Amino acid sequence: MYNIIRKKRDGGELSNNEILAMIKDYTAGKIPDYQMSAFLMSVFFNGLSEDEINSLTEAMAYSGDQIDLSCFGNETADKHSTGGVGDKTSLITVPIAASLGCKVAKMSGRGLGHTGGTVDKLESIPGYKTTLTKEDFITQTEKVGIAICGQSANLAPADKKLYALRDVTATVDSIGLIASSIMSKKIAAGAKNIVLDVKVGSGAFMKNEESARTLSKCMVNIGKSCGRKIRALITNMDIPLGNAVGNSLEVIEAIDILKGDGDKNLRTVSCALAAQMVSMVQNIPYEEALKKANDAINSGKAFLKFCEWIEAQGGDASVAENTDLFKKAALQKNVFASKDGYITHMDAEKVGSICVDLGGGRKKKDDVIDHSAGIILIKKTGDSVKKGDVIAVLHTNDEKSLDSAIIDFESAVTIEEAQPQIKPLIYDIVE
Amino acid sequence: MYNIIRKKRDGGELSNNEILAMIKDYTAGKIPDYQMSAFLMSVFFNGLSEDEINSLTEAMAYSGDQIDLSCFGNETADKHSTGGVGDKTSLITVPIAASLGCKVAKMSGRGLGHTGGTVDKLESIPGYKTTLTKEDFITQTEKVGIAICGQSANLAPADKKLYALRDVTATVDSIGLIASSIMSKKIAAGAKNIVLDVKVGSGAFMKNEESARTLSKCMVNIGKSCGRKIRALITNMDIPLGNAVGNSLEVIEAIDILKGDGDKNLRTVSCALAAQMVSMVQNIPYEEALKKANDAINSGKAFLKFCEWIEAQGGDASVAENTDLFKKAALQKNVFASKDGYITHMDAEKVGSICVDLGGGRKKKDDVIDHSAGIILIKKTGDSVKKGDVIAVLHTNDEKSLDSAIIDFESAVTIEEAQPQIKPLIYDIVE
Repeated sequence: MYNIIRKKRDGGELSNNEILAMIKDYTAGKIPDYQMSAFLMSVFFNGLSEDEINSLTEAMAYSGDQIDLSCFGNETADKHSTGGVGDKTSLITVPIAASLGCKVAKMSGRGLGHTGGTVDKLESIPGYKTTLTKEDFITQTEKVGIAICGQSANLAPADKKLYALRDVTATVDSIGLIASSIMSKKIAAGAKNIVLDVKVGSGAFMKNEESARTLSKCMVNIGKSCGRKIRALITNMDIPLGNAVGNSLEVIEAIDILKGDGDKNLRTVSCALAAQMVSMVQNIPYEEALKKANDAINSGKAFLKFCEWIEAQGGDASVAENTDLFKKAALQKNVFASKDGYITHMDAEKVGSICVDLGGGRKKKDDVIDHSAGIILIKKTGDSVKKGDVIAVLHTNDEKSLDSAIIDFESAVTIEEAQPQIKPLIYDIVE
Repeated sequence: MYNIIRKKRDGGELSNNEILAMIKDYTAGKIPDYQMSAFLMSVFFNGLSEDEINSLTEAMAYSGDQIDLSCFGNETADKHSTGGVGDKTSLITVPIAASLGCKVAKMSGRGLGHTGGTVDKLESIPGYKTTLTKEDFITQTEKVGIAICGQSANLAPADKKLYALRDVTATVDSIGLIASSIMSKKIAAGAKNIVLDVKVGSGAFMKNEESARTLSKCMVNIGKSCGRKIRALITNMDIPLGNAVGNSLEVIEAIDILKGDGDKNLRTVSCALAAQMVSMVQNIPYEEALKKANDAINSGKAFLKFCEWIEAQGGDASVAENTDLFKKAALQKNVFASKDGYITHMDAEKVGSICVDLGGGRKKKDDVIDHSAGIILIKKTGDSVKKGDVIAVLHTNDEKSLDSAIIDFESAVTIEEAQPQIKPLIYDIVE
């Protein structure tokens, strides 16, 4: 290991065998953390070559269980978002894609930092089981076309161990390490077709388009080198996506979209992602798939698929029919515009953190989430406001979090005279 | 600690308080090795500022015991070599300086890698005690002017812990870390005047003059900022110093020099170092001190001081009067020149490693040293040789090490037709 650290430190390229052996020994506890963290810091400075990234991904993907989806042939599709605020697209995209024949057997994550996680959101639906046996996972996918559960404990354990180390040694921010971490889990999860939603902006981990593009290319390369069809959308996370931030609030908004209502931008991104999945699985042009995706919403097929899925996985689908049945937070407090003008900026990361403060996320690993807590955005970047207009409603059961949340929210919003230029919703497609 | 790693990673400068707290917590076991090694690797890439180096040195110097030499006022002098092959100068320099009134209460190291250590060398003198109580250490210095023992266990423990980590994480080669590691021990050891012998060349850790100069300046700066008088000599270690490599063989050679015989270059470097100590302690010009140093050898004062010191520290000084009393290795084998020409290069690091192979050093921490093992160089770089001339004599008690040692020695020596240019003995003085 000493020689491997030294080689990387001095700008050398590691062989496939060196990387495989390193990851194998590290997972087995034969390489101490202090050597691995020195290696990771060298990677932070000297980067990884394409070959090194592919080797690392493969080594981590095969460090534990692989999900065998071979019974579904080429119809399996997976979707991954790099994480954002108000990003409930999976809840919309997956039912659309499944209603059009895709098989989506998906493992999702929990909230991380200021971003939410699909598994936490789904748990706001009464009865929904986020843990399934391997058999139920496959059977449900076969019957309904969708199964979404939490990540199995032994999926890419090398990545889990490495990520925990990176998290405490300031070695998270390295494109090669980020790409291989994400992709190792996607490769182990077995789908033949993968769509990536790479978020960029104030609410995303990638703050600028260039780094999002580099990461996208890197992940697409990995996917291809592992024999998968893969495309990445680079999408705007400068503004929270949709109007709801917080677990049950986001599920309600997703259901609204599936019913043909709701925020136009959220629908656009969700349909674009679903269309990429359908386009890859059915081998049809993207435009044709996009039309099918919109039709699936308009016809109600996607909504029906959503209900079918929730029910199959133990959830109470009646909350989808009537979203008023979702438990509401006891306290709802308005935030007002402090002056006339246009909202020129809304710090999406801060909005995500405020949601955590209100109870909608975890500050410590073992915190219990308040699924009803969150924020409804009434006005967003680009909207004109008059002093005293309600710009957001904060939902919480924790009274003592409210005062600072209001102050924080006000400071997350910039109101100026001139109307701002709005950035595109989808920056690019990398394939 | 996360924020400290991140700051250094991103090229920031740490405050004095941040460094003090980090070293304190690390020594106390409150910061895990995996965070420290990530920090060290950031330092490898981004370096340390002068202020950071000073803070780090101070933090490590004060992490354990400090030797209180205040009873000797400004007369205390210490000497440190960055390590070389055949580097027995301490055994010569210290008696010279002490015979001229310097108080040398010195803690020395053991052999490291291919380089020898003063403590190992001294242990080849029958009866010499390398462990002294604090009281004996001071009393002997007061009476004789010299006490040299091994490093106390609690001298700069932070450095000890950090060095062990650097050693296995490829983070040794960083000027700031090397300088603060050396200087933390010198500062804790308490002398008011310090002379450094920074070795450069094939047998040294610094392979080129530029890095030796940078390291020298860095250490001199640290010393000054800690209120010490300090000078560094940059000296040639492209060729082993003197003719003997190996513990008792080097002690014999040192005694020869003190008797006015022996290798001219070894005498030159030893006197230069002693003169710097005397010049600082007595506040006199270097040239005047150098004359005194040579006089101390010529008059026999330095040799008498050597005998007095050895006896005071439990050693049998009769071996100094008659060096034939030193135990000799059972096997002595000649190495011959393979052709006519000039020795244009002798890989000093390799010579040091061969000495280790013959039994004169440790390959593993717990190896027992054969004090009589080593090499006598008959011809050195620059000498003309005829095929079949003896160029070296290998001494060992380990017959099975001999064959490969002869082959290794032959490959460490380059014989060519043209007479080589000889590099200077002393490159520079940094003060």
